[in-house]
Amino acid sequence: MSSPVNAAAGTPAAAGTTGPYQAAAGLADVSVSSTKVSDVLGRLGFYHYRGYNAVDIARRGNFEDAWYLMLHGNLPTPQQRAAFAAEVAGLREVPGGVADLLPAIARLSGPGSLESLRTALSLTAQAIGCRPWGDQTPEQTLGQAIRLSAVMPTLAAGLYRLASGQEVVPPRTDLGYAASYLYMITGAEPDERATYAVERYLMLTIDHGFNNSTFAARVIASSGADLGAVLTGALGALSGPLHGGAPARVFDMLDAIGTLDNAEPWLRHAIEHGDKLMGFGHRIYKTLDPRSELLHEVAQELHSDRVAFSEHVEKTAVALLAELKPGRDLYANVEFYAGVVLEAADLPREMFTPTFACSRIVGWVANVLEQIQDNRIFRPLAKYVGPDAPRELPAFWQPAEH
Amino acid sequence: MSSPVNAAAGTPAAAGTTGPYQAAAGLADVSVSSTKVSDVLGRLGFYHYRGYNAVDIARRGNFEDAWYLMLHGNLPTPQQRAAFAAEVAGLREVPGGVADLLPAIARLSGPGSLESLRTALSLTAQAIGCRPWGDQTPEQTLGQAIRLSAVMPTLAAGLYRLASGQEVVPPRTDLGYAASYLYMITGAEPDERATYAVERYLMLTIDHGFNNSTFAARVIASSGADLGAVLTGALGALSGPLHGGAPARVFDMLDAIGTLDNAEPWLRHAIEHGDKLMGFGHRIYKTLDPRSELLHEVAQELHSDRVAFSEHVEKTAVALLAELKPGRDLYANVEFYAGVVLEAADLPREMFTPTFACSRIVGWVANVLEQIQDNRIFRPLAKYVGPDAPRELPAFWQPAEH
Repeated sequence: MSSPVNAAAGTPAAAGTTGPYQAAAGLADVSVSSTKVSDVLGRLGFYHYRGYNAVDIARRGNFEDAWYLMLHGNLPTPQQRAAFAAEVAGLREVPGGVADLLPAIARLSGPGSLESLRTALSLTAQAIGCRPWGDQTPEQTLGQAIRLSAVMPTLAAGLYRLASGQEVVPPRTDLGYAASYLYMITGAEPDERATYAVERYLMLTIDHGFNNSTFAARVIASSGADLGAVLTGALGALSGPLHGGAPARVFDMLDAIGTLDNAEPWLRHAIEHGDKLMGFGHRIYKTLDPRSELLHEVAQELHSDRVAFSEHVEKTAVALLAELKPGRDLYANVEFYAGVVLEAADLPREMFTPTFACSRIVGWVANVLEQIQDNRIFRPLAKYVGPDAPRELPAFWQPAEH
Repeated sequence: MSSPVNAAAGTPAAAGTTGPYQAAAGLADVSVSSTKVSDVLGRLGFYHYRGYNAVDIARRGNFEDAWYLMLHGNLPTPQQRAAFAAEVAGLREVPGGVADLLPAIARLSGPGSLESLRTALSLTAQAIGCRPWGDQTPEQTLGQAIRLSAVMPTLAAGLYRLASGQEVVPPRTDLGYAASYLYMITGAEPDERATYAVERYLMLTIDHGFNNSTFAARVIASSGADLGAVLTGALGALSGPLHGGAPARVFDMLDAIGTLDNAEPWLRHAIEHGDKLMGFGHRIYKTLDPRSELLHEVAQELHSDRVAFSEHVEKTAVALLAELKPGRDLYANVEFYAGVVLEAADLPREMFTPTFACSRIVGWVANVLEQIQDNRIFRPLAKYVGPDAPRELPAFWQPAEH
């Protein structure tokens, strides 16, 4: 078999051998599975959930529609949607044995900490009795997956309030997913426009191909581990600043720029000195990130001064990047307008990444439920490049007598 | 470039295209990184730590030697060993803010639960202030890594005692790693032979190439996440029955066989009916697993009736597998004699996988410290095989008015 191989994508075994394929760092350009869950077509600026344009779904539906779609592969009929919305609304309460420990968990980290959310999610999985998926029925696993997804916003909001010295606000079953979430954070009746904005954000960020946390979820699930292990590990991956953990950095930049007039000189200086601009560029999209586009529209509807300022920064940055880094195709990514929208919706900045976790868990679950249907444990190879083995034991090493 | 590609190892892009490389399920035969940490040469029945034959290290040294080697790349001089052993012995205590919560965590799961260990490890990482590694100095990250590794046996033993209704036994600084661990489990002065046996097991299981949990640790670390996220995720992966989570199943088999005379008919029936024999066969070793070999020797030194019985089952099984599944090269794997050794050392069965976690965390740490030195986020691709996208939105889907 003869095949040209993209050098950037890795190196096959040398001619005449059948050794392992040497992948590029980070598994760039390696397809590790087939999937029916979603796809990202970076060059087209298009991504979908179960085949449906994700931006269309986010524009027209609500979170429960997208959640149902991810779980079942199809959009719900009106009856199915009503039943599902009622089901998940009834699962928002933190289970017994967990609520009592949240104050102590929250105390160890700051408001909006992904670390305390990780501990609380792990504990919740214990409390609802998650076991290795091979030891359960598929229905049990699905039920636990929905339960953990439904309780995630309650954990995130509760930990936030505890860590900032406020009383926990319990969830409300009479509100939709996004409205109940905002209510638990603020304790006040959620504003309709803010709910709309946050819900668009949540729907747009449910899934996005084999991103790092989704891949981590599949890797862990492939060992047969329970959903607590899988989702705790995925949440840990999401907490990394290279993935979901650094939305505040966009604001640090906006704050540093400060005024409309300062945008051009500040950005030019940063780009010329090789600084990476937060909120611009994406490994996959070489066009405008389709998530940014809808978020930008949503931001405009919230009309704050901040939105106008952010638009100016975006336009200036894109123009300067085209001038100073020609051919790199750098545009605003989801992080840029996500921050603008969530801030304009009065969500505390510390809660941006926990909010991302609330939507992405739905994507993790869909991927994991697919993984375990036709599972093989992820167990790759690595190329050893250390000292020639076996090394001679050094003379100075005189181990203990046994 | 022309290259023959092993069909089993995956499929390159079609001739004339430069699309992604389609890896085989589970990333079998794909090398995802280079490493100086360790290697497994399956066909030779050989594996090493930092170039040194791992079985030699395990036979002659103690756990602290191997731990130092994994962290620093070289075996310690006598002075270095003494200093390191004293350092890690001083780090065994559970930090404040964690010890008080252990009873409630233990109560949610049974003795030896990997789930409660996962929650406790996550909490401990919070308590010692682990932050994204890019926001810390390398020395801070190394210090936290050593601390979490040192406290893992204390968490595992403490949770075990709490879940089985016993008082927690604090660690002792006057004992080596393995002896202190056994002391915390049993509350009694550890037997020398039992300590020797458990320490061999611990040393043999520190690392083993890019196994599932080690790979999970690298994937999570590549996002920039803190060590709590990384090690909690890896522990979750280890808890899966296809990885570290099912040593008790070997005993279920030994119990079911029951007597020497029953071994041959029981095993023949099982193999002929297509049942997988627990403790036999390995994805990488097609020879006797080198870990089993030393563990078998250690088991023989413990001379229990159980050991003699297990040896008989092993010999019978290997002979029957060669007869009934010729060419498959199925031998006893590490799980088989590990169970025999740990049981003969009077370790409670529920503690076998938590004990594995105590040694493997040292391997995770060495891999993660290497990963973050030259990091690129793991972000692979997947091949979408669902309905053609974009699908038309169904007429029945009438989303909420906004």
